Amino acid sequence: MTGDMLARGRAVLEAQAFSRLIGAKLVAWSPDLAELAIDLQPHHLQQHGVAHGGVVSYLADNALTYAGGSRLGDSMTLEFKINYLRPARGERLVARARVTGSGKTQAVCQCDIFIVAGGAEKLCAVAQGTIWKVEPP
Amino acid sequence: MTGDMLARGRAVLEAQAFSRLIGAKLVAWSPDLAELAIDLQPHHLQQHGVAHGGVVSYLADNALTYAGGSRLGDSMTLEFKINYLRPARGERLVARARVTGSGKTQAVCQCDIFIVAGGAEKLCAVAQGTIWKVEPP
Amino acid sequence: MTGDMLARGRAVLEAQAFSRLIGAKLVAWSPDLAELAIDLQPHHLQQHGVAHGGVVSYLADNALTYAGGSRLGDSMTLEFKINYLRPARGERLVARARVTGSGKTQAVCQCDIFIVAGGAEKLCAVAQGTIWKVEPP
Amino acid sequence: MTGDMLARGRAVLEAQAFSRLIGAKLVAWSPDLAELAIDLQPHHLQQHGVAHGGVVSYLADNALTYAGGSRLGDSMTLEFKINYLRPARGERLVARARVTGSGKTQAVCQCDIFIVAGGAEKLCAVAQGTIWKVEPP
Repeated sequence: MTGDMLARGRAVLEAQAFSRLIGAKLVAWSPDLAELAIDLQPHHLQQHGVAHGGVVSYLADNALTYAGGSRLGDSMTLEFKINYLRPARGERLVARARVTGSGKTQAVCQCDIFIVAGGAEKLCAVAQGTIWKVEPP
Repeated sequence: MTGDMLARGRAVLEAQAFSRLIGAKLVAWSPDLAELAIDLQPHHLQQHGVAHGGVVSYLADNALTYAGGSRLGDSMTLEFKINYLRPARGERLVARARVTGSGKTQAVCQCDIFIVAGGAEKLCAVAQGTIWKVEPP
Repeated sequence: MTGDMLARGRAVLEAQAFSRLIGAKLVAWSPDLAELAIDLQPHHLQQHGVAHGGVVSYLADNALTYAGGSRLGDSMTLEFKINYLRPARGERLVARARVTGSGKTQAVCQCDIFIVAGGAEKLCAVAQGTIWKVEPP
Repeated sequence: MTGDMLARGRAVLEAQAFSRLIGAKLVAWSPDLAELAIDLQPHHLQQHGVAHGGVVSYLADNALTYAGGSRLGDSMTLEFKINYLRPARGERLVARARVTGSGKTQAVCQCDIFIVAGGAEKLCAVAQGTIWKVEPP
């Protein structure tokens, strides 16, 4: 069941051209939880050699949406907020999001974003946002 | 003077590999104001044919940093929040950010993000955040 | 019409025991706009003699809800974010909120909060949030 | 040591006139953690009989500041964001905040706010913000 869910989630990510451009991977997706990751390449960086804030916030935003979508079905991010804690210098970014609370049409989700450097994970940002069920047209 | 400033700002953007990957342009940069834009290409979209939220939030984040940096010098985004207002379906994204208030080491900035479709601009997101002066090492 | 609206809005505020405790006044309420104010008293302050952050955020939150409610009817704040710009030292707090964008069930609103000192207004905080239409039970 | 810290923290809260008006209590304060609570009275409510959002956000804001202050010393909230999860109907509000990351002059903190009803705690809001060290004049 969860395996099917993960396969479906990966197909959605694959259908997002921008996610392919960035090279994001859906590592895990189960009820109320989502994990996305990016293996950092030179094109993800900014002028100081660390991952661009836009890469970190992309990953947070998308992980929040996946977490909320695990509860709501097809959904989108209504809003989110992110605090950057440290420069994201390393070889891999990992975002882990969870549903904190939810109703019929929305879910509040939170996300921890880690930078993996030399095999060790360090928290580099935290995010919080509202996910919204998309009504079929 | 402002022309020099714009040229300097563009050099910084050009030094960000991720900004080159996304194709962001610094349209205007003057004291307390910044405008960034992206001409939308297929690789900016998500599965429903609109600009990915990560593209919109990248542009907001970067415009906030430029606005704050116009006051503070070399700086970074400490945190920001974004509300998405409508799907970003169109040919161009434009983010206009301004300094709302500032101190010696930080600036609060706000940003309006527009989608341009058929030549008409519509507000598609609003963002608010804190920019932080980076101390030279 | 707008006069009736203001009278209705004041009746709602009067029905909020906490708003009476704080002494908030609805100064203006019209489609997409709301203005709330508090004449500062010693019991609004914190230990440094300025208005407590909780007073400022209360006023921002409530003004956002009134702005959104002008479009949506009976409604509540789903989430908001506030940046404090300067200490609120003065004789009166004024919050002016507006609808930035809205759909059928929600509105994104923004709010400027001013401190009035010696008759002059200074921006002391900015807020942004999502207002949600409350469905009748 | 922690007992002294709690006594000092309570003295600060007692020095905030607005916190006395609201009736907030500092339940616990130790390195990186803070817990504040309010026993709900009729004057804390809004028109639907639940705790006013301004009471919930006051408690979140103050708990964030105490958490950050445990690391930074005298400090203030620079900004925060709150998502309301459910109506705060019950007899007591409890806010538990923690330091998520910190530097020399700032700390990112997160806070869970619970409503206690019939002795059972339910999460009713989550908040995230930046606390700022106040420099002695």
